[in-house]
Amino acid sequence: MFLFRYCSERNLAVNPQGGNTGLVGGSVPVFDEIILSMALMNQIISFNSVSGILICQAGCILENLSQYLESMDFTMPLDLGAKGSCHIGGNVATNAGGLRVLRYGSLRGTVLGLEVVLADGSILNCLASLQKDNTGYDLKQLFIGSEGTLGVITTVSILCPQKPKAVNLAFLGCPGFSQVLETFTTCRGMLGEILSAYEFMDDKSMKLVESHLKLSNPVTGSPFYVLIETSGSNSAHDEEKLNHFLEQAMTSGLVMDGTVVTEDKRIKALWALRERITEALTHDGYVYKYDISLPVKRLYDLVTDTRERLGRSAKNVVGYGHLGDGNLHLNITAESYSHSLLEAIEPFVYEWTAQYQVSISAEHGLGFKKKHYIHYSKPREAVHLMQKFKAMLDPKGILNPYKTLPASSL
Amino acid sequence: MFLFRYCSERNLAVNPQGGNTGLVGGSVPVFDEIILSMALMNQIISFNSVSGILICQAGCILENLSQYLESMDFTMPLDLGAKGSCHIGGNVATNAGGLRVLRYGSLRGTVLGLEVVLADGSILNCLASLQKDNTGYDLKQLFIGSEGTLGVITTVSILCPQKPKAVNLAFLGCPGFSQVLETFTTCRGMLGEILSAYEFMDDKSMKLVESHLKLSNPVTGSPFYVLIETSGSNSAHDEEKLNHFLEQAMTSGLVMDGTVVTEDKRIKALWALRERITEALTHDGYVYKYDISLPVKRLYDLVTDTRERLGRSAKNVVGYGHLGDGNLHLNITAESYSHSLLEAIEPFVYEWTAQYQVSISAEHGLGFKKKHYIHYSKPREAVHLMQKFKAMLDPKGILNPYKTLPASSL
Repeated sequence: MFLFRYCSERNLAVNPQGGNTGLVGGSVPVFDEIILSMALMNQIISFNSVSGILICQAGCILENLSQYLESMDFTMPLDLGAKGSCHIGGNVATNAGGLRVLRYGSLRGTVLGLEVVLADGSILNCLASLQKDNTGYDLKQLFIGSEGTLGVITTVSILCPQKPKAVNLAFLGCPGFSQVLETFTTCRGMLGEILSAYEFMDDKSMKLVESHLKLSNPVTGSPFYVLIETSGSNSAHDEEKLNHFLEQAMTSGLVMDGTVVTEDKRIKALWALRERITEALTHDGYVYKYDISLPVKRLYDLVTDTRERLGRSAKNVVGYGHLGDGNLHLNITAESYSHSLLEAIEPFVYEWTAQYQVSISAEHGLGFKKKHYIHYSKPREAVHLMQKFKAMLDPKGILNPYKTLPASSL
Repeated sequence: MFLFRYCSERNLAVNPQGGNTGLVGGSVPVFDEIILSMALMNQIISFNSVSGILICQAGCILENLSQYLESMDFTMPLDLGAKGSCHIGGNVATNAGGLRVLRYGSLRGTVLGLEVVLADGSILNCLASLQKDNTGYDLKQLFIGSEGTLGVITTVSILCPQKPKAVNLAFLGCPGFSQVLETFTTCRGMLGEILSAYEFMDDKSMKLVESHLKLSNPVTGSPFYVLIETSGSNSAHDEEKLNHFLEQAMTSGLVMDGTVVTEDKRIKALWALRERITEALTHDGYVYKYDISLPVKRLYDLVTDTRERLGRSAKNVVGYGHLGDGNLHLNITAESYSHSLLEAIEPFVYEWTAQYQVSISAEHGLGFKKKHYIHYSKPREAVHLMQKFKAMLDPKGILNPYKTLPASSL
């Protein structure tokens, strides 16, 4: 690409930007970077309805791709709250997780190929549309999740599953976090292959969605809520499995109350309770956001401990997330930004998590805000090797500088 | 590791070797390399029955891991014919495919972490046991599928699915390859989430298994056979789905004849017909082996065209493979090795496949035998970048030399 050759020759830094929905400052410039918007690269190149392989440009909006595929009885293997504005290129560049990882796995498995523009302006074509290819090293993996620091993704090839014929959603209230966990183990056994999402929200998350967004929660009075989605090929079978599970969960006291919906419109309304928590938080004040991978058994302890530590200095401390993936979203709100509150949170949260060998960024990435904390999750020699890759692929450091990795001591 | 530091200092080359079941000569020394057997590193380190995450040493035999997990109602996400002797470390180093890719995806999605010894003897710990982790570049991916040329995998962390409660196997005869394809589309729609394998074999493959191994094929007289496996959580539901599908397939003439089994012993016997083709081929004479990713519609054309081209100079030309993944195994046998036959096959097979932008090695890797053909599947700049990675990680070229990549012109 001419732009990159121009920038490389003149040492001009470039900040690639997709839908700009990232939560760690990876898509915003820090100093004087040139913003490279991918918004006009929004063409679908091809879709093969036998293999399910979609090839499209990086600037395609996730929701548009979903709608396009649904008209052909397929679906995207990823879904997330920001789908209305995030780009598929940004999703891949950040290895976005979201709501369907439990069912369809991560983008590292479903992305089949990429076209990437490198720092010197050359184009690297790894755009296979094959489900299997073991010819040499899998170069595309380095760019997945590299947040635009090694190259700019311009085209994506992705394997899309068939659209499920039947979808059910159960929204349940649990008396405690241990019941949230036991409900998960029970439904994983009883729903098996049709389980497509298991999300949890604490009471405080739901209260924020109700008060700030005026959404109504059909199940109230529980300290925890879970959202269980099934997706399958036979609605009678799926409903039977779900009913058996619900019966078991109710009679054994795992679940206090709940509702099940099958209509598309009501499914969307229930999902909104979970998907719009992020939005509700922004209405609550300044938000300190954390995205942690933890052993599920300890998942909520971090919320309780943080809440206790911060006491009245925080407005709200809430926890929710992809329990099925061991992924907690911990959010702390305050009337406005306060440096002393930040100092009470960090490095406390990172040190707390470090004792369990976990990830301080399960799906959000490191971007600008969290790059200095990489050492809590990765050993020094791994960071050093990452810096060597960066130096090799972008020797002038013009690609999304100040992001992902701490400054190199090479 | 001391060995590597010693070898690095003295410029001694090392050939890591797992179960030595590879098909492209990746695990055998070429000149005077030191063979590093991983067989004694065969310990299971931990298994978490909530998350399904197994951590084990690289020398564990795949079948032993499967048996260990099955006793706890879990299963390995991969399975292949060589399971009785192949090592999990070798599986990961070659990004092995096998019989369960259709259901559980590739190792790039299920391998969560690795410990790798680098060429200088330092240990790279990427041994996360987390389902999600977006902190920096995903270094482990470079080692998956690198055939021991960038580092030696010593420990593996892998996400294992729950053992399905019900398994059914249908072995069907189809009147032609177009019916094999249509049967696939039909069963993918009707079996949906319980479809766990879709394999095809031509009549000639089955004849070899019958004549050389004395296995009996319960369905005869068809030019093509397919093996369809379902795995699910409710046997009544699964059988109902399978019966509906079979009724549809029989009445519409897609399938001529068939058998369905549900008992474990009979399932194993039917799978043997497919899994032991490789073994039957070795009894037939010298074998020229090809492993191609192709658009499914053209999958069998390569077999027909090769058979026609070789005429009587080949003993048998057979085709079978993982149709659900678009992966053909083309095998040609002759009484003994003949250079003129090789010249009739290569580069013909590679040139034939190159017209479809496909992979000349879907799952076997390149090893020693196929490294020079990488250009049929990968553009020059991608190969060049791979060589740069190799030079950076193994500057003295002591790790499994003469494998995977052609000699660098760096």
